[in-house]
Amino acid sequence: MTNKKKTTIKDIANVLNISPAAVSKALHDDSRISDKTKEAVREVAKELNYQPNHLASALRRGKSNLVGLIVPRTNSNFFSSVIQNIEEVLNKKGYNIIITQSNESFKKECSNIDTLLFTQVDGIIASMANETINLEYFEKIKSKGIPLILFDRGENNLNVDYIGINDYDSSHMIVEHLVKQGCKRIAHIGGYRHTRIFNNRIRGYIDAIKKHNLPLEEDLLVESSLTIEDGREKMKQLLALKKPPDAVYVAADYAALGALQVLEEENIKVPADIALVGFGNEPFTALVTPSITTVNQHSDEIGKQAALTFLERVKSPNKKQTLNKFILEAELIVRESSNKKR
Amino acid sequence: MTNKKKTTIKDIANVLNISPAAVSKALHDDSRISDKTKEAVREVAKELNYQPNHLASALRRGKSNLVGLIVPRTNSNFFSSVIQNIEEVLNKKGYNIIITQSNESFKKECSNIDTLLFTQVDGIIASMANETINLEYFEKIKSKGIPLILFDRGENNLNVDYIGINDYDSSHMIVEHLVKQGCKRIAHIGGYRHTRIFNNRIRGYIDAIKKHNLPLEEDLLVESSLTIEDGREKMKQLLALKKPPDAVYVAADYAALGALQVLEEENIKVPADIALVGFGNEPFTALVTPSITTVNQHSDEIGKQAALTFLERVKSPNKKQTLNKFILEAELIVRESSNKKR
Repeated sequence: MTNKKKTTIKDIANVLNISPAAVSKALHDDSRISDKTKEAVREVAKELNYQPNHLASALRRGKSNLVGLIVPRTNSNFFSSVIQNIEEVLNKKGYNIIITQSNESFKKECSNIDTLLFTQVDGIIASMANETINLEYFEKIKSKGIPLILFDRGENNLNVDYIGINDYDSSHMIVEHLVKQGCKRIAHIGGYRHTRIFNNRIRGYIDAIKKHNLPLEEDLLVESSLTIEDGREKMKQLLALKKPPDAVYVAADYAALGALQVLEEENIKVPADIALVGFGNEPFTALVTPSITTVNQHSDEIGKQAALTFLERVKSPNKKQTLNKFILEAELIVRESSNKKR
Repeated sequence: MTNKKKTTIKDIANVLNISPAAVSKALHDDSRISDKTKEAVREVAKELNYQPNHLASALRRGKSNLVGLIVPRTNSNFFSSVIQNIEEVLNKKGYNIIITQSNESFKKECSNIDTLLFTQVDGIIASMANETINLEYFEKIKSKGIPLILFDRGENNLNVDYIGINDYDSSHMIVEHLVKQGCKRIAHIGGYRHTRIFNNRIRGYIDAIKKHNLPLEEDLLVESSLTIEDGREKMKQLLALKKPPDAVYVAADYAALGALQVLEEENIKVPADIALVGFGNEPFTALVTPSITTVNQHSDEIGKQAALTFLERVKSPNKKQTLNKFILEAELIVRESSNKKR
């Protein structure tokens, strides 16, 4: 690679015969500059391999142009796809993203919030840890006056923008599908009720079971952290019942995979003897044998909407607080593990 | 959750009957405090649910206690496992981690470096983007005097600490294994040579092929970005040869998955007609049918060593630069896709 002099805003201005200030405004997507000029500036900047000095630019404008993310973990297709989509939208607008993971720990989430506030982020987009009950730290973000947007795992009491799918309806859709396959004894391996999304899935399961006059038994509804290991353990627990289920709806794909492993080990035919449904559309669900029926949570749309909501809040910080509750409809992807009629 | 008064360092000091200063030192792992006292302080802090104020503590000590990570992407089992292990070691030492992804883009990596320097990180642990050839931005980190540690995708010319596996030997191990299975025409779908690890894998492939007197043909060695799509395309290219290979060693698991899809679509028996080996031990390799033979890159050990190397550098910043090159031996995991002798 050659060691040419670094391209400056002035170089771009010279090529286009406009002022350096106009170039700077164009690069920061200033509304006073026409779209045509912005486009031209971006093209020349790209041709000359212009590298903006982020720090200098931030200090000049009193903004960091950083957006902080907090996710339970990054090694889930759902969260990494949401992150990807947030980045795509916000990078184009000149924001950089820094990611932190809570690993489902409340303490770590608090420390992540402190870290992000310390780094002067312009906003925080978060999905809450399983452990989180106390909302003090999220209130702290609000009190700093920077936008807070929650997705997937949110909390009504915080009164902030939220983007997610309709978890209650998703459970209805799943139970409906299993009933159509002829299942009569449907169990649910759910998450913990104190997390809103899992509570909604449990409520949806209970109401759908009642609606179809199916047995609603305490033993058929279990809560867990939904790891692979939890899926294994809870599946064994269900198999040990006097009357085991003929279908199991698991609230997360990794736990569904654990359940499937146990069913294979016990030589139980899936879906003939027990039908299985997961949640989240992790890529492996399409690859295993039998492939696992699951729910598409629209991670791409959730990511995009979270980013756009942030941009909206930054644009009109004093806008009267009308909460954007984007509740998307989930999509059931029927695969071998529950399809008895093929 | 109750709204009790927040626990302070003074509360911990009162319980243990020591000075608040001693508590603070203990919480920051100061060498002047005994391990016994540190242990007692940590226990009481936990019991009282003490939440340290990160910002105040950082300002007091002129340190951010942040470590920045740069990875090509987070949605790979290898990178997320490295991140996990780095966090486990550094969180215990009071460091918080912020993660950025380059998405294999040189420009994004530069902007990530600027972002992390802007947030005053105490060090950067990075794995380079596929696109990166120009090292100017990494030199910038070095010139700031903060530790830079590279893992997996590193670069000799930077003269910094590096942790990775022995890629050259890994290729030898794979070719050796395929020869033992009776394969006589072994192709390699590799990464780009300008990235050190992929260059080492290619060199290892070439030398091992020569050692076993097998045909070393231009058509049998192809380079790509190693996405699923690349794996599909390059596999089709190999199948279209006048003399197709009887084994394919793919330098990354996702590309190996793409190759496997094409082989299945073409009704080619794996491993009987063509044996297949991937690289990276992504979880899906054990789950697909046939399961894919692959290489364990020791992500856990790489993460731990990267974190420990950072701690070492922080402890002795003026230590004469003896580069820690932790080159770990990779491990071949033989599965159905290459095991002809079962």
